[in-house]
Amino acid sequence: MDFAAVLQRHVARVEGGIDRLLPGASEPSSRLHAAMRYSVQSEGKRLRPVLLLAASELFGAGPRSDPLPAAVAVECVHTYSLVHDDLPCMDNDDLRRGRPTLHRAFDEATALLAGDALLTHAFAILAESYAGSPPLAVSLLAELAAAAGSRRLIAGQMEDLLSERGAAQTREGLEFIHLNKTAAMIEASLAMGGLCGGASVTDVELLRKAGRELGLAFQIVDDILDATSDTATLGKTAGKDAKAGKTTYVSVHGLDAARAIARERSDHALALLRRLPGDTGFLTFLTEGLVSRTH
Amino acid sequence: MDFAAVLQRHVARVEGGIDRLLPGASEPSSRLHAAMRYSVQSEGKRLRPVLLLAASELFGAGPRSDPLPAAVAVECVHTYSLVHDDLPCMDNDDLRRGRPTLHRAFDEATALLAGDALLTHAFAILAESYAGSPPLAVSLLAELAAAAGSRRLIAGQMEDLLSERGAAQTREGLEFIHLNKTAAMIEASLAMGGLCGGASVTDVELLRKAGRELGLAFQIVDDILDATSDTATLGKTAGKDAKAGKTTYVSVHGLDAARAIARERSDHALALLRRLPGDTGFLTFLTEGLVSRTH
Repeated sequence: MDFAAVLQRHVARVEGGIDRLLPGASEPSSRLHAAMRYSVQSEGKRLRPVLLLAASELFGAGPRSDPLPAAVAVECVHTYSLVHDDLPCMDNDDLRRGRPTLHRAFDEATALLAGDALLTHAFAILAESYAGSPPLAVSLLAELAAAAGSRRLIAGQMEDLLSERGAAQTREGLEFIHLNKTAAMIEASLAMGGLCGGASVTDVELLRKAGRELGLAFQIVDDILDATSDTATLGKTAGKDAKAGKTTYVSVHGLDAARAIARERSDHALALLRRLPGDTGFLTFLTEGLVSRTH
Repeated sequence: MDFAAVLQRHVARVEGGIDRLLPGASEPSSRLHAAMRYSVQSEGKRLRPVLLLAASELFGAGPRSDPLPAAVAVECVHTYSLVHDDLPCMDNDDLRRGRPTLHRAFDEATALLAGDALLTHAFAILAESYAGSPPLAVSLLAELAAAAGSRRLIAGQMEDLLSERGAAQTREGLEFIHLNKTAAMIEASLAMGGLCGGASVTDVELLRKAGRELGLAFQIVDDILDATSDTATLGKTAGKDAKAGKTTYVSVHGLDAARAIARERSDHALALLRRLPGDTGFLTFLTEGLVSRTH
């Protein structure tokens, strides 16, 4: 398998899906739609939608549905979460994916509304694109709404914010943040890929568990990079955590132990992937790459 | 029909549904869930969920599904839109439903996240509560996502904001704002009630059209009240539009003509309601009341 070629194929498919499934930038309100496109059509890693597409290809035999709308939906939700996270009342960040953040390029109110619109549009995409398979549509909608909801993604953001404001953070508290802020959407992406691919309930649950381990590993590496890399390499502001006196895997465990935990988590993810049917070579390679990445 | 008693019954049912379907205030993140409850569990008119419940009762014969989760979902979306609309970067308002706005009672970041969470939770409620009837669930989800999306509710908010910033506003521009900012969610509420009640496609479309007329009438009355009432009576800041130099039905048409247009719109709504089956007495009475209201 040529990993780079498969990755390139998945990413190109996601880009095409985004362009097709987002409202045109000239549709009224044009300012709103231009802002939505500015934030989604940037040089992101497309990690979540790529995981979704790759997971959907593991299950050759059963009935399959096009996973692309689901992939675009998870990228919309991920992007909305970044747009709101960058706002002045949250992280107040100027740089994202190597470009000015949305509220810098447009303004704060437009960024707020464009984030709201991306979140809502993700659900609209699922409800419309899978209307011909209502049970699948409902499963996808339930999975995404739960992962992005107040018990998962947003709970993680809220607690992360309180931690930045100096709330004492235990190891368990830090785990809660990572599990919800980062792992929830990665779990959902893999599970939604499985659902589109016609995976069994057991295999969807395996994907969810692998996503949990991968998500935790991914976030620990993010903490490590924030402490060790620079802004130009990351395409977003580096060194923010230490500056904010924030509790991270690095501040709690030290750099070496944080690296070891990331390795352990990704090994768990790899072991779970091995129990799935089909060729998991791409997902395995991707997992390895995410842990050893430098940006 | 005892209008007040029926209204009271619907409102009590909505309050009960909200309490049951929102995460408990002590569930982690407790700050987030307390904020969600603070904003939804206030003395709102519950107009949209009441319209939904009333519309669901018009269709006696067919198969019916419990409309309460859908009613709670539309109230969650309506409340989120108010919470975000009140934020400093938008209307920067201190008072809502007679109490401090959410970002005043908590803080800006919490209000941002609680709004996001209410929006997401609305879709979670629909996906979970109607999972046993996937085609109904998908119809409800599609209806709500479209009404709350970037082509309707949020487009209206974006253009309303640009109008507040002094963008020249034509009569057509003003109509676009009202149609999307206000009418969209009222259309969706009536249509979703019809869907839960087992209405035919034709009757759902009639409900949508009645909602459009009612929504426009309702917003014109809102403009009139902002110009003629006081803050204590409204439970929210009065006189904002004139102060902001904002284009409204009153500034464009004058007070008398605005009243006449509101009357005309509500007459259209009443004519559409008369074409529906069942006892539309409550919806007729409610429409009359909304146009002659003083707060």
